[in-house]
Parts: sequence; C-alpha cells; structure tokens
Amino acid sequence: VSRFITLTTDFGRDSPYVAAMKGVILSINPAASIADISHAIGPQNIAEGAFVLGAATRWFPPHTIHVAVVDPGVGAKRKIVYVRVGDQQFVCPDNGLLSYVCRDRQPEQAFEVTNQSLFLDEVSHTFHGRDIMAPVAAHLSLGLLPEKLGPRLDELNLFEWPRAQPRVNGFTGRIMFSDSFGNLITNVRREDLPGDVHPAKFVVETAGQRFTGIVRTYADSPAGAPVALFGSSGLLELAIVQGNAAQQLQIPLGHEISMRWEV
Amino acid sequence: VSRFITLTTDFGRDSPYVAAMKGVILSINPAASIADISHAIGPQNIAEGAFVLGAATRWFPPHTIHVAVVDPGVGAKRKIVYVRVGDQQFVCPDNGLLSYVCRDRQPEQAFEVTNQSLFLDEVSHTFHGRDIMAPVAAHLSLGLLPEKLGPRLDELNLFEWPRAQPRVNGFTGRIMFSDSFGNLITNVRREDLPGDVHPAKFVVETAGQRFTGIVRTYADSPAGAPVALFGSSGLLELAIVQGNAAQQLQIPLGHEISMRWEV
Amino acid sequence: VSRFITLTTDFGRDSPYVAAMKGVILSINPAASIADISHAIGPQNIAEGAFVLGAATRWFPPHTIHVAVVDPGVGAKRKIVYVRVGDQQFVCPDNGLLSYVCRDRQPEQAFEVTNQSLFLDEVSHTFHGRDIMAPVAAHLSLGLLPEKLGPRLDELNLFEWPRAQPRVNGFTGRIMFSDSFGNLITNVRREDLPGDVHPAKFVVETAGQRFTGIVRTYADSPAGAPVALFGSSGLLELAIVQGNAAQQLQIPLGHEISMRWEV
Repeated sequence: VSRFITLTTDFGRDSPYVAAMKGVILSINPAASIADISHAIGPQNIAEGAFVLGAATRWFPPHTIHVAVVDPGVGAKRKIVYVRVGDQQFVCPDNGLLSYVCRDRQPEQAFEVTNQSLFLDEVSHTFHGRDIMAPVAAHLSLGLLPEKLGPRLDELNLFEWPRAQPRVNGFTGRIMFSDSFGNLITNVRREDLPGDVHPAKFVVETAGQRFTGIVRTYADSPAGAPVALFGSSGLLELAIVQGNAAQQLQIPLGHEISMRWEV
Repeated sequence: VSRFITLTTDFGRDSPYVAAMKGVILSINPAASIADISHAIGPQNIAEGAFVLGAATRWFPPHTIHVAVVDPGVGAKRKIVYVRVGDQQFVCPDNGLLSYVCRDRQPEQAFEVTNQSLFLDEVSHTFHGRDIMAPVAAHLSLGLLPEKLGPRLDELNLFEWPRAQPRVNGFTGRIMFSDSFGNLITNVRREDLPGDVHPAKFVVETAGQRFTGIVRTYADSPAGAPVALFGSSGLLELAIVQGNAAQQLQIPLGHEISMRWEV
Repeated sequence: VSRFITLTTDFGRDSPYVAAMKGVILSINPAASIADISHAIGPQNIAEGAFVLGAATRWFPPHTIHVAVVDPGVGAKRKIVYVRVGDQQFVCPDNGLLSYVCRDRQPEQAFEVTNQSLFLDEVSHTFHGRDIMAPVAAHLSLGLLPEKLGPRLDELNLFEWPRAQPRVNGFTGRIMFSDSFGNLITNVRREDLPGDVHPAKFVVETAGQRFTGIVRTYADSPAGAPVALFGSSGLLELAIVQGNAAQQLQIPLGHEISMRWEV
C-alpha cells in the first residue's frame, strides 16, 4: 500500500479540474500525498502523455499510484483500467497511455475498473478523472485490493511504440518529445549503438540540420553549437548549447532523424 | 479543525509570492497540507477568481481553509474576511471573491480579520496574502476559533452573480469561463431547462455561431464539430470536438449567448 | 533536521524532470514535504534564479533544505555545494546561485558535495538535479550531518550582487525582476533612502518614463497611473496601476534606473 498518488493530465496546471481531483482524493484519503507529474500534455495527445508517464513514473517509490487523464473518449466506450507494471500502479483510460511504460515489459496485473461503489455518487459524462479515477486511486491508497475494482483484463489497448530502425551503420529514429529547454529527445537508445565506435564518428541529420559527433554534456561545446548527446533518460537528444533547438530548428514532434557512423 | 489549506491567486504559479505564502504557512503549522487551486486568475480579475473558487472548492474535505488573493484594493480600505459557507472556510479580501460560492446560499459565519496578533510582525502595504491571510489560515488550521479573528460581520461585499434569464422557450446567458481546452462554460444550468424537450431540439447561438442539439459527451461527435453539452460542473458548455472553441470562435468572456428550444 | 525541501529550477513546471526529482526524494524519504518555489527561471539564467531564491527562501521554516538547479555547467568542472546561510540550507551548483542570499551575510557552513554513496547508482552527465542534488537533499532531510557530504569549502563562487549606487540627492539602480503583474522590481532598498524627505519629492526615471512621488500602495492611484512604491520585499518597484509595466514600458531586466529627490 502506498499513500503516494501522482497526476498527469492535459487540463493545464491551474485548471479547477486538477484542483477538483485533488479535493476528491483528499476527501477519501486525507493522508494521501499527491504529486503533479504534468498537466501540460497537449490536449488529447495520448502519445505525449505516454512518453511523459514512461519518463517520470519510474522514479517514484514502489507502489505509487499514477493517475493519468488524457481522455478524448470520455463518456464513450473506452474502458478505464487499473494496471500494475513492475512495482508501479496506474489508473487511466485504456487508450494507449501505457504504451511506453509497457514497451519493454508485460503488465503484472490489469483490471477493468467497473465497481461503481467506488465512484462518486454522480458520474458525469465528461470528467471521469474526477468522478471515477480520482476516487479509485484514493481507495487504492487506503489499501483496497485491485481485485475489487472489476474483472481481470487479458489485453490492454496499447499502440506499438515507435522504435529506432537499424540501417547499414546507422539508425532511423524519430523526435519523441521536446523539453522546456527545447532539447529534442529521440527514440534512439544508448544501448542500441555499437560500443566500439568513437563518439566523434557519429553523424545525426534531421530537417537539413547536421549534428557531428556525440558529446558527453552540454558544457563541452560552445554556446550556439548544435550538439547530439545521450541525455538523462538514456535517449539521444539534439540540442543547441544554451539555445532552444525546438524553436530554432522548427522540427516537429514525430519528425524522422537519421543517424550513422563511420567504420 | 482541518490541516488542509488551498491557495487561489493571480500571482502566477511560479511566483516567489506564492512560495512566500507557503513558507509562512508551514512556519506556523508544519503539519499543514497545502494544495494549489489556481495561480492563473487574470490579474485583479475578481469575477474569474470567484468562478474558480465556486467550481473547485466544493470538492475539498470538510473544514478545508481556502485562501484567495485577488486583491486590487490591497492596502486600501477593503476588509479582509473569514467566511464559513457550508462546511468550507474562506479567508480573502471582502471584494466579491465569494460571490459565486454564496450565489445560492447564505454564509454560516463571517468575521472581519482584525486581530493583529495573528499577522506577521511587519505587515506590508502591498502583500496581505503573505502578511495577513497566510498566517491567519495557518492559525485556523491549528484550531484557532474563527471568533478570535475579529468582529462578526453581518454583511459581505458580494456582487450579484449573473444568472441565465428566461425567455420564451429559451434563455439568454453568458460565457463565464474558458477552460484549458478552450471550452466555453456558460451560466445556464442543467436544472434550468425543461426536462421534457428532446436534446436534439435545442439551439444555442453566440457571436454568429450556431450549436444545434445538446450532446451527451464530446466523443459523440466528429472532430471539428461545434457541440453544446452539459459539462462536469452542470453548466452548459460550448465546445469544438478535439479543437479549441475559445481560440477558434474568439468569443470573449462575458459575451451573451442565447438558447432556445422547439416545442 | 527538517522534512521540508523546496525546488527551484529552470525546467518548466510541467517537466518530467521536476517529477523525477520529486520521485527520487520521496523514494529516499517518504516523509519529506516538497514545495515548489519556481520552475520558470529563464533557461540557464543564474541571476534570475539567485533573485528568486533570495526573495522566497527566507519565508520557510528553519532548516528547510532548498534545492536549486539552474546548471549550465552540468557535467563540467563546477562543484555541487551544500551551504547553510542563517537557518536555511541550500544544495545547488556552485555557480553564483547564492549570490543574493549571501549578499549581506556570510554563509555559516559550506561543503563540497562529493560523497558518491549518497548519489543515485548511475549518475548522468546532464541531470545532476535528479542524480545528485535530489538524493543528497533527501538524505539531509533524514538527519544526515552536512559534514558527511564532502570536504569543507572556504570559498564559494559568488558574483557581486549589483547594488544601488549613491548619487547627489539620489541613486542609480537596476531592474532586477519582473513579477507576474509586470511590476518592475529594482535593487533600491527602502533603508537606502533618507528618512526625512517627503514621499512626493522623489522622482524615478528609466527608459524615458518618469514616475513622480512614491506611493504607499497601488490602490492610492487611479488605474493606468505609473507609480513607484516600496513593495513587499522592501525594494523599490515601478508599476502601472491595474496594468502591466513590463509589457507597456518594454524595459528589459538589468536596465538602469535613476532616482533623485528634491531637497
């Protein structure tokens, strides 16, 4: 049992909807400890929500309950699910939000959330985050067994997470996320690369911009330099030192990159 | 007694002023639990603050202390007040911020906050949120009786909350708030409508845009469709499915809408 | 020992990096209480970070641990330090972030943070906030003695904080910070001024705009009036009543102001 609950939504940080979810949680479990992961997911952008969940949730204490509400299908037929992956727990719509968290691993447990006795008395058609997911998370944080939530699920609605594709002496990949510094985070993982190639021999290209060599950290290059490096998430990042690559290069999320190395 | 305190201000989420208020509260009551409702109220926009307080505070645990600082008259003659409405408590300037919370109900208790022994030692002329309201809320969260705050008040400074006006087979109302999805929330309440009219027979018009029929939820209509529905607050909302009505329709807050139904 | 930890970064409030730091802290000390000061410091803007730390941290309970991550030199040779100033504790890069906090006082204690047994098992080259500073703060909040962090430091890397310069019957100063209302906060302190000059006799000028007299609070002047006043931080502020001076006057941070008084 964990008293930790996190929230990830596309509501905007200062939305009264976020506050309502916190109020509902604390009304059910006054000892719950709520942390915001992000409320700036693009509206209805399930892929961005999936990336942020994958990047942030694994740092939380075991058994933390992560509530994610990016829910374009609210009020329609999509399920709400409880999923345990490793030692982290998730409550969210079954719309692909867990595709990155589950990229390399099977969920340990999944239940459809159907037990209405756990919901708010009145359930709206447009805000299941407040009326269903928040109270369910609060009950879990009080020790409710996941088995009580509803029927076991054998299959989740996950999309295939885009992986970097091997090429001759290289990869093609994609821009997955842009952080607040404008650093462009790709889906090329450090462990995908050959270990015996000198970092100076790598070249990354995207949208007509070329990044030569892989540096260790931003401070190794002068201000304004375009650099490629493996960031804190173990993923290849494209950055402009003390600049904003996303703004300066105007490369959209999802755009292809190519990486190759000389042998 | 409640250890829960919420904050609603026009300071901006990342303002050192918000942090100072939290520091003051925790210095007086280290066990206080502080939740942010919103710090994105438009500068000095009392009506927007009033709406957000009305929308969010009712979801919090009984006896929660809600501090609201939208305070264009700071340092001038406006009072600072403590008000209990139902089982929620408020500490704020007496400038109309509670007009929506009190729309349909009388406050149970109101006191002017004058007991200087509860304030910070030095009270600035420009930041009573930090110097008066934060410490007063912290003392209340430790069990201070509201009677100790100052003299009982018989009247609060509330403005008449704009209500939808009945017309022949319809209503005129207003846009009260725009949420982070750009959904336009009006002051027409579900319970104002006749129960025996088919949802398809309603028409809403504003600023030359027509919304035909009232849908149950966003997912019932295709992307890009203008829809009217009763949102999670029980109020009529105008939305564009998977779009941003506020941006696309450019309808300002306060703008009139008309709603009618065929009989 | 304090369970209170604050965070000040340039990551953006909704960054998964902020969430990761919180997760790391709570994983080490589940009883830690984390407050955000600001995550909107301009990218790599050490001076702005220094101002916000100086403005906000002093309001927190004694022994609070303030973690500040504005870190353009991450992965390079800059040290990470623990510093105690008065009864507040700081963990941050040794890059000048404490220049305002230490403007008028000597730190009581300073240690370089080198004890790797306190870090995460894997330390990235680009995110020491998560891998070093967050876990160190969490261990301190559990009662770890600062002496265990690493060698004592005799000197910190601080820059000279710009002070208002006396002139004949006046001062020259600078715009240090713009708050969310667009109020321009300068480095002229109330205590720098002569006590025997009538407030109406002061004139402030900057960028061709003249502010006549020093008012007590915003509400003393009509909407739209340019006013000068001593704000809640004891510093001279330039404001437009119910307007946004930063936007309307387009005066950049760091810009010079001149103040004089008639005798």
